[in-house]
Amino acid sequence: MKVLILNKELKEKHKKQITETAEKVGAEVCFAESEDSIPEEFREAEVFYGYGMKIANTNKKLKWYCSATAGVDFLVKPGAFANEDCIITNSAGAYGVSIAEHIIMVSLMMLRQADKNFRKAFAGQWGDILPQKSLNDCRITVLGTGDIGSTFAKRVRAFEPAQLIGVCRSGVCKEPVFDKVYKVDDLDKVLPETDLLVMSLPGTPETEGILSKERMELLPDDAYVVNVGRGSAVDEEALAECLENDKLAGAALDVFAKEPISEDSYLWNTKNLLITPHTAGNLTLAHTLDRNVEMFCEDLVDYAEGKPLQYVVDKKRGY
Amino acid sequence: MKVLILNKELKEKHKKQITETAEKVGAEVCFAESEDSIPEEFREAEVFYGYGMKIANTNKKLKWYCSATAGVDFLVKPGAFANEDCIITNSAGAYGVSIAEHIIMVSLMMLRQADKNFRKAFAGQWGDILPQKSLNDCRITVLGTGDIGSTFAKRVRAFEPAQLIGVCRSGVCKEPVFDKVYKVDDLDKVLPETDLLVMSLPGTPETEGILSKERMELLPDDAYVVNVGRGSAVDEEALAECLENDKLAGAALDVFAKEPISEDSYLWNTKNLLITPHTAGNLTLAHTLDRNVEMFCEDLVDYAEGKPLQYVVDKKRGY
Repeated sequence: MKVLILNKELKEKHKKQITETAEKVGAEVCFAESEDSIPEEFREAEVFYGYGMKIANTNKKLKWYCSATAGVDFLVKPGAFANEDCIITNSAGAYGVSIAEHIIMVSLMMLRQADKNFRKAFAGQWGDILPQKSLNDCRITVLGTGDIGSTFAKRVRAFEPAQLIGVCRSGVCKEPVFDKVYKVDDLDKVLPETDLLVMSLPGTPETEGILSKERMELLPDDAYVVNVGRGSAVDEEALAECLENDKLAGAALDVFAKEPISEDSYLWNTKNLLITPHTAGNLTLAHTLDRNVEMFCEDLVDYAEGKPLQYVVDKKRGY
Repeated sequence: MKVLILNKELKEKHKKQITETAEKVGAEVCFAESEDSIPEEFREAEVFYGYGMKIANTNKKLKWYCSATAGVDFLVKPGAFANEDCIITNSAGAYGVSIAEHIIMVSLMMLRQADKNFRKAFAGQWGDILPQKSLNDCRITVLGTGDIGSTFAKRVRAFEPAQLIGVCRSGVCKEPVFDKVYKVDDLDKVLPETDLLVMSLPGTPETEGILSKERMELLPDDAYVVNVGRGSAVDEEALAECLENDKLAGAALDVFAKEPISEDSYLWNTKNLLITPHTAGNLTLAHTLDRNVEMFCEDLVDYAEGKPLQYVVDKKRGY
């Protein structure tokens, strides 16, 4: 069995871990530098781990593609795979810690109006005593209760929020971290009682545009929105309009319809909009990278033994 | 009994709460607008609650001064009170929630290098994928384990830090939130194994300059420092030197030797220094203000009944 790896963030210890796991199961491993420099004998590898679209698109013999990303919207699109039957696994589960910390950071920045004083401080000016809010007073709704949403909920619980609600497709969350979990169908009931809406959804046809203008209007005027899932989930123009007209108090977006945002985008100057460049979760964080590699190695053993894989993507659901 | 109140942040509900409590104990209340507009009949009030130095300095009949602040370094100085026997209480206990949230916010900004990308975003530029660290990997030392230090520890515990150590004068912390608590005498043993040093100390002669150049050098080169207590605790020049020479990875200061920082201060341009304008805790936050008023009302009942007050400052210790 040939295993092709394309993940530039791997340290020596990770390569060793993968190599040793592969040896145990009798697989050959190649660590490639780029999609354009794959050695001849690994171009038809059975297994792939990392980032890369071309390999999916050209390798007809590929049987298992393990994505180093959590979101796989780009992989479940029709035509993404030369071998339509290729199994896809993802790394949802590795990013929760990092993205939960991002959500708490940007939420506090907005609630405390800290961004306004940082703008001043970065320009060498002493800031102002501005009205502040607290996670402690906050009614929080988490839309998407997978690894990211649950890991955030566990952490934010310690801040003793006034209310912590989960919303997901099934209405059931594996982790007992929410006061209550609703089905997405009931989202509109929850929004009017939400001070902080955290969106951690995969990019699927169902989640596209889920935060519509109508739904933004259901949120209180002093509510905040954080999006860390996919940019497609938010109507960006409507969001900017709400922010400019004080129909929302703030938003923190890490993901956008088009990334990077163009230099002349209206988003840069939208009132009370905090922009981060899709950095909520990435493999520069030791915990995320370690877990990412661990998950692939777990599944590699199962794959070699013919067992079902743990982190399989449901292609129909898209996550 | 006459009670003078000078706290501009009070809402109607707080005035009502204080007035009703005073009525119960047979006290007369005056809500003044400033130290210069105190009605004649309240200039020698027995009780004071709020902010104000002149009243302490001039009212010889003042028996109890309840400070709306947590730090009372300015009140325990010789000569602060016309009546040397005046009891001082403070509002330590009201600020923990707000300041704990501040500490977590700035710690995450530093660990994630988010401040660098916000500088770019505020200038309309897409940021970079920078190496990130996590509270999850972090060995945290909290110097000062009072309300602020403990409230922070309870929250940061949910981030599953690698180690969470408390350091205080007695070596004993009321709250069981630390892995271990050391005496200040043992501080130098803890510093070499600290990735994030959080300082939440009162301003006293003992804490002045406690984070000296020598102690900064005991910290790892990739350690971070957060100070929310008093600026006097940190040797600012030595800190700036360490930051400039990569002997520390970052620092977030909310308090300074002199506030506000002058426009031409070197601090504004010190590498990896995050400046906030003494906004970690203040009465704009509903929770802090509510608790502040509650604490005064609790003590007002005890005071009227001749019982010992709960929130008394030990003038010798200075907190």
